[in-house]
Amino acid sequence: MIDFWFEFGSNYSYLSVMRIEELARSLNVSVRWQPFLLGPIFAALGWETSPFVLQKEKGAYVWKDMARQCKKYGLPWKQPSVFPRHTVLATRVALHGVHEPWMGDFCRAIMLRNFVSDEDVGSDADVRAVLQALSLPADAILAEAQSPANRVRLREQTDKARALGIFGAPTFFADEEMYWGNDRLEDALASLV
Amino acid sequence: MIDFWFEFGSNYSYLSVMRIEELARSLNVSVRWQPFLLGPIFAALGWETSPFVLQKEKGAYVWKDMARQCKKYGLPWKQPSVFPRHTVLATRVALHGVHEPWMGDFCRAIMLRNFVSDEDVGSDADVRAVLQALSLPADAILAEAQSPANRVRLREQTDKARALGIFGAPTFFADEEMYWGNDRLEDALASLV
Repeated sequence: MIDFWFEFGSNYSYLSVMRIEELARSLNVSVRWQPFLLGPIFAALGWETSPFVLQKEKGAYVWKDMARQCKKYGLPWKQPSVFPRHTVLATRVALHGVHEPWMGDFCRAIMLRNFVSDEDVGSDADVRAVLQALSLPADAILAEAQSPANRVRLREQTDKARALGIFGAPTFFADEEMYWGNDRLEDALASLV
Repeated sequence: MIDFWFEFGSNYSYLSVMRIEELARSLNVSVRWQPFLLGPIFAALGWETSPFVLQKEKGAYVWKDMARQCKKYGLPWKQPSVFPRHTVLATRVALHGVHEPWMGDFCRAIMLRNFVSDEDVGSDADVRAVLQALSLPADAILAEAQSPANRVRLREQTDKARALGIFGAPTFFADEEMYWGNDRLEDALASLV
């Protein structure tokens, strides 16, 4: 089993969200989805937003890298006009849906909306549109996602990320070994086979 | 031709310095060595040292990643007890030797001293020991490396790195496209074939 820590606003998480299920299945490894928020992690590092925004040169590079990486993986891509996008509600839905059969489809749909359709994923209407397109009971899922218990779970999830030493996304854990970045997905999976 | 920007104190540059000549030769791509100093680049970003030192969590991760990466590539590795090491003199020698037949051997020897023997590479004696082990005329090379003209060249080289938008090492340029990180060496080379 691989633990997959990802954030819906993270462009490199997009690559892994799109790739992980098929890759893991081909190796007979199960995926434990671990949606979390990078914002509090960055805040703890003293950053008010993504390093891709704070560091001009790295930011300029990242979009070139993303276009090339998507081409390499055969994934669609459009540079988002807003970055990073608000993802709290989508993350609450994902955390609520971790064990649901729609988890992978929901995560990919949010990512495609953010990084291919270039649409916001932050509002109730945004997340509802994604759930409805998947023919899921949006009202019930949004109510559960916004419940006090699930809000607490997300805070605990972020605390757990920090306790694990996570400093970016995506991050994988395979047999308690940390692997950071989409570039390490294959290595992390290979270590389990 | 691939432009290869690297820094002797950078552990991920170690991986590329050890790998690039053989990989490039197998693809019939020539390598233009571009030794430079990361210190002034980091200083321009407002950092007083490597992000692997400034960010505790990332720093802890990097040494685990390096051990795994070296194992994957079949490279020797010992976590340096001093990081990052002083590299100005070695970089001056490399810049002076860019077109010399000993360039690759010298760069690999400095890297092995830093990241396998866990020895300093900063002093006159350190660099002299490396040159002598390669049976090179250490006195003459060190005199040229420390000449006023070569010191100016290194400052110009660092300015050039900044003008190119370089923010870390290793960085590759293939047909004016920037690729950052040892993980992108294969992609950069493949784009030229």
